[in-house]
Order: sequence, then structure tokens, then C-alpha cells
Amino acid sequence: TRVNVAVLTVSDTVASGSGPDRSGPRAVSVVNSSSEILGGARVVATAVVPDEVDRIKDVLQRWSDVDKVDLILTLGGTGFTPRDVTPEATKSLIEKETPGLLFVMMQESLKVTPFAALSRAVAGIRGSTLIINMPGNPNAVAECMEALTPVVKHALKQLRGTREKSILAMF
Amino acid sequence: TRVNVAVLTVSDTVASGSGPDRSGPRAVSVVNSSSEILGGARVVATAVVPDEVDRIKDVLQRWSDVDKVDLILTLGGTGFTPRDVTPEATKSLIEKETPGLLFVMMQESLKVTPFAALSRAVAGIRGSTLIINMPGNPNAVAECMEALTPVVKHALKQLRGTREKSILAMF
Amino acid sequence: TRVNVAVLTVSDTVASGSGPDRSGPRAVSVVNSSSEILGGARVVATAVVPDEVDRIKDVLQRWSDVDKVDLILTLGGTGFTPRDVTPEATKSLIEKETPGLLFVMMQESLKVTPFAALSRAVAGIRGSTLIINMPGNPNAVAECMEALTPVVKHALKQLRGTREKSILAMF
Ligand code: NA
Repeated sequence: TRVNVAVLTVSDTVASGSGPDRSGPRAVSVVNSSSEILGGARVVATAVVPDEVDRIKDVLQRWSDVDKVDLILTLGGTGFTPRDVTPEATKSLIEKETPGLLFVMMQESLKVTPFAALSRAVAGIRGSTLIINMPGNPNAVAECMEALTPVVKHALKQLRGTREKSILAMF
Repeated sequence: TRVNVAVLTVSDTVASGSGPDRSGPRAVSVVNSSSEILGGARVVATAVVPDEVDRIKDVLQRWSDVDKVDLILTLGGTGFTPRDVTPEATKSLIEKETPGLLFVMMQESLKVTPFAALSRAVAGIRGSTLIINMPGNPNAVAECMEALTPVVKHALKQLRGTREKSILAMF
Repeated sequence: TRVNVAVLTVSDTVASGSGPDRSGPRAVSVVNSSSEILGGARVVATAVVPDEVDRIKDVLQRWSDVDKVDLILTLGGTGFTPRDVTPEATKSLIEKETPGLLFVMMQESLKVTPFAALSRAVAGIRGSTLIINMPGNPNAVAECMEALTPVVKHALKQLRGTREKSILAMF
């Protein structure tokens, strides 16, 4: 079993070449080092787009509808500035919300910093793809991934249609 | 004062006769044993439907619009598999969301197991009926009910239009 | 830098003259005493409306679209009674949801009372205005404000388009 992961950096600064992508490589490295606990995860695609709804949606749609990756992590664009639209782009595409993942990310992030409350992250399912918004900050990405690793593997197994007896029985 | 409760088991397995309904009877027994703390609750209807949006909606609509029960508990179908659609069926029917009930269920469930994060449960109000999605697992149903019992009685009183002075004053 | 705050009391009782507005003055006093930590906040408008969607929307729209205040606090109308419609009025107007603020308010309020679960408060952004539903109870307003003060100042800075390097980096 392989878990195909795609990582989308959402940032005007990075997209315009005005600054380096620190979050993307960090997320890739977190996925790689958690590969086993995520069920054999590997990053199969990365991209960078500016903070624009249509640009974000284009990539999310291609990765979920055409490439049918298992997991998409978006990085950044979840704050309160007028340019922050990653949650809105994501919300317009997902067919099912997965609020429990957001609860866990928020609960754990708040233990690190009260500013976690400024995340407007969305998470949900499109087809057989799980899409999770993550913060732009590289350390916060690692923290959020750590909060989710115990359950993401099972989330992805369920997405493939496998109702695992032990877990399924719970929900 | 009587609180009329209806319990809907959502499960392909149970609906097709391939397996017994363990969650339904457990939920009924939990309601009965919490009857007093819930304000005089009794189960007035139970049903089993497969994991299909229209089938779920039909029962929820009848129980809320025609039978006007006070509380509907759905059991199961809140996970990540393609067949899990109870939250979507519920969301399409409720007129008001009640996120605080979900917060409490999630917070308490996560203390028991990290897999609680895989619940996509929805809760809300349709007319004078409160609808709450619960997990399919019998033990998890009991845990969720326990988390909610301190407040459900007051939620239902408010639904009947009674703004209790002490509680009302808070919200 | 000035932070312009408007406070809307939503209450049939107060609007009809049948009872005094206890929440409004308390909220004003909380804003004033937290002025500095909120980034120089001052209350520039207050109003009272009955629990009616259109009346609530009218004021929220005027304050955000015309007066362009930075922060609107609504008080009351977030419970389970048929007249409680503040969240629905708010939801119909906001362009971006800010669930992290709700998470923090709920988490902190639940430490004070389990009845906090009966709040259906909504929070979000319309244009450059942050709108937050608060409970009607004067003490609860103070508690919710206290829970939010560490982050609201930064939320409002981001709303003005200022991506602060330190905070921005996180989201
Ligand atoms: Na929502």
C-alpha cells in the first residue's frame, strides 16, 4: 500500500520569486520521515501558487480528480489578511467536511501558541482525496502533522473504501 | 414534561440483514437509563436505514416534521468511507447548527481515543427537533450521550420556546 | 492606530423596552478596559435590535459596509430557542469564517460552565470587519473577551492587510 501525498505551497511571496519556499520542503521532509506511520507515504507532487482562489482550486482539482492522490496538504493562506483565501478555495471543492481533524490540529496548536486561533484551516474529502489546510509556518506544519499522524493513516484507509473492523466499528 | 426521542441506526450491514444492530438497542438503553436527567426521556421510535442520503433524509424529515419528536439520535455513517453520508444528509436538513454540542462530544471522545478525530458528526435543529449524529460504536454512543446529558435537557427546553431565566441569561 | 468597535445587543426584551440592557454596557466597559491590549480600541457605536434576522443583518451590514468598523460584537440570541437567530443572521453576511476564535471561546467558556455548549456563536470576516457573536450574559461576555484578547489585536492587524512578519509566518 502506497499513500500518495501532494504538497501545495500557497504564497504570493514564493510564487513571485520574492522569497524562498521554506514550508514546502519542510512538509515534504515531515511526510518522508513519517512515511511508515502514515501507511507508506511518499510525496508525488509539489507546487507553488499565489494567494488566489482560482489558482489554488486548479491545482487541488487536478491533484484530486485527475491524479487521484490520497492526501493533499496545503501550506499557508489561512490567516486573516485580505489575501488569505486558501480555506475558501478548499471549502468550495470539498464534498465532505472532516471537522475532527481540524479540532485536533487546533487543540494541539493552541498548546504551542495562542495565535493558533488565527488559523482558519479547512479539511475535507473530495472524491478519494483528503485535503488538509496547514499553516504556512514550517514549525507549525510539523506540529500539525504530528497531531494528525495517529489518525491520518486510518482516515486514508477508510477513504479507499476499506472499513477496518476495529476502527469502523467506532464510527 | 416528556421528551420524545427517536433513534436511527444507519448501516448497510444492519439494513441488509447481514448483521445485528448493536448500536440501536444500546442507544435506547442509554436514553432509558438517563431518562430523568434528560427531562423525562423515552424512546418513541427506532428505525434502520442503509447508508444512503435519501433514505436517511426521509426518516429524519418524517420524525421532525410529522412526528415532531424532540430529539433524534443517528448512529453510524459518520466516518471517512465513501458510504459514510450521515453528516451530509443531516446537514441538508438542519436549519440551525449547534456546534457547541459537537465540541463537547469531540473533546470528551478524544480523551477516550484519538480515533474520535475520524468522526464527522453534525448536530443541529430542524423545527422543534434536535438532531445529533453519533458514532456507530455502541460504547462510543454511551460516551457521547454521557458528555451531552448535562446540557441536552436544557437544549430541549429552549427548543420548546422556554427561555429559562438562569440559562437563557447566558446565551 | 485606532480600533473602532461596535456593540449590538440582540434582545426582544431590551428592544421592546421590557427590560434593561445589561450586556451592552458591560461589553462597552470590557472593551474600554482592554483598550490597550486590543490595539487602542474604542466603542464608536452601540445599538439594540430584537431577535429578528433582518433587523440584525441591517445593522451588521451598515456597520461593516458603510461605517467600516474594525470589530463588531453581537450580544445574545445564540441559544436554542426559536427566537435565537443571531448566528444565522451573521452567517448569511460573513465572507470568511474564523473558526479558531470560536474554538477558543468555547474551550474557555466550557471551563466555566457546561452550558457554554448551548452557544451557537458564529465568527467571521466581512470586508475589513471582524464580526463575533457573544453570549447575552454580561459575565460570559467578559469571559469570552478575555479568552480572545491575546489574539484579537493581531487578527485586526491582519484584516487591515498588514501581514506581521512574526505572526504571519505562522499562518
Ligand atoms: Na461549519
